[in-house]
Amino acid sequence: MASEGGEKPEVAAVEQVAVTPRLSDWIIPALRLLAFFATLAATLVMALNKQKKTLVVATVGTTPIQVTLTAKFQHTPAFVFFVIANGNASLHNLLMLIVNFMGQKFDYKGLRPFAIAVLDMMNIVLVSGGASAAAFMGQLGRDGNSHARWNKICDKFGSYCDRGSGAMLASFIGLGLMIIISVICIVKLRNHKLVDSSIAP
Amino acid sequence: MASEGGEKPEVAAVEQVAVTPRLSDWIIPALRLLAFFATLAATLVMALNKQKKTLVVATVGTTPIQVTLTAKFQHTPAFVFFVIANGNASLHNLLMLIVNFMGQKFDYKGLRPFAIAVLDMMNIVLVSGGASAAAFMGQLGRDGNSHARWNKICDKFGSYCDRGSGAMLASFIGLGLMIIISVICIVKLRNHKLVDSSIAP
Repeated sequence: MASEGGEKPEVAAVEQVAVTPRLSDWIIPALRLLAFFATLAATLVMALNKQKKTLVVATVGTTPIQVTLTAKFQHTPAFVFFVIANGNASLHNLLMLIVNFMGQKFDYKGLRPFAIAVLDMMNIVLVSGGASAAAFMGQLGRDGNSHARWNKICDKFGSYCDRGSGAMLASFIGLGLMIIISVICIVKLRNHKLVDSSIAP
Repeated sequence: MASEGGEKPEVAAVEQVAVTPRLSDWIIPALRLLAFFATLAATLVMALNKQKKTLVVATVGTTPIQVTLTAKFQHTPAFVFFVIANGNASLHNLLMLIVNFMGQKFDYKGLRPFAIAVLDMMNIVLVSGGASAAAFMGQLGRDGNSHARWNKICDKFGSYCDRGSGAMLASFIGLGLMIIISVICIVKLRNHKLVDSSIAP
C-alpha cells in the first residue's frame, strides 16, 4: 500500500510532463511562423524597393534635358544591413521551425533548448540593430537634418519611402515576436528544471 | 552500511554545488563591471560631445562675417537614442551588480536567474539598436551619401566625429560583454537543472 501510494504522484507528474509541453509546443511554432513571415516580408520588401524618378533639370531651346534618378536600397548601408539581418532572422526562424518538428534526434545531452535560446538572442541582436539603423535612416530621409544640411528626400521619392516604412514595420513586428519567443523559451528552461525536480523524488 | 554508502555521494554533490558557482560567480560580476564602465563611458562621451566651429561666410569691406556652428549630439535623433540606450544599460548593469551581491532575499521562488536573463536580453536589444543606429549615422557623417546628396560633415567637425566614434566603440565593447554575460547566464540555467537532477537521485 505504502509503495503504491508513493508511486502514484510520480505517474501523475510524468503525465503532466507529457501534456504540458504539448500545449506550449504549439504556441512557439505559431509565433515563429509569424516571425518568419514578418522578417521575410521585411527582407523582400526592402530588397525589391526601387523607385525611378525623371526630373527636368534644364531646357535648351525647346528640348527639356531630363535626368533619371533611381532610389535603391543598396545606396544606403543601413538598408543593406537591414536586409542581411532580416534575411538571416527569417532563415533562423525557418530552421528552428524545422528543428522543432523534425529534429528530435539533434537533442544532444539536452543542450537543444539552451542552444536555441542563445541563437534566438543573437538573431534578436541582429534584427534590433538592423531595424533601428534603418528606422533612424528613414527618419532622416523623411525629415532631413537642418543642422547637418541634409535635405529630406521622401518628398521626391514618396513610394520608395512608403515601402521602406512598411518593411521597417514588418521588421519591428518580427522583432517583437522574436522577443516574445525568446522570453517564453527562457521561462520554459525554468519549467525544464521544475519538471526534473518534481519527477526525481 | 548501505544507507551510509547511499548518503555519501549526495554530500559530495552538495559540496560541489557550493564550490562550483563560487568560481563562476566572480566571472559574471567582473564582466558586468566592465560592461557597466563601457556603457557608462559610451553614455558620457556621447552626451558631452559638442564642438563649436567658426566659419567665415562672407567679407563685407574688410569685416569678415562669421558664423559659429555647433555640432551637438542632440541634433541627431539616433545619437539621442544611443545615449538613452547606453544610459539605461549602465543602470541595468549597476543594478544587477547590486542584486548580485546584496539581493539574496529578492530570490522569489527561484525566479531571479530567469528574470535576470530576460532583463539582460531587453537591454541587449536596446544597446544593439542604439549602437547600430549611431554607427550608421556616424558612417553617413564621415562619408556622406552622394545618392541622396548628403555631404559629409566630419571634415568640418573632426574631433566631434572622433569622440562619437570612441563612444560607439565603447558601446560595442559593452554590447559584446553583455552578450557574453547573457550566454553564460543561459548556460548557467542549464547547470541549475543539472545540479537539481544530480542531487535528487
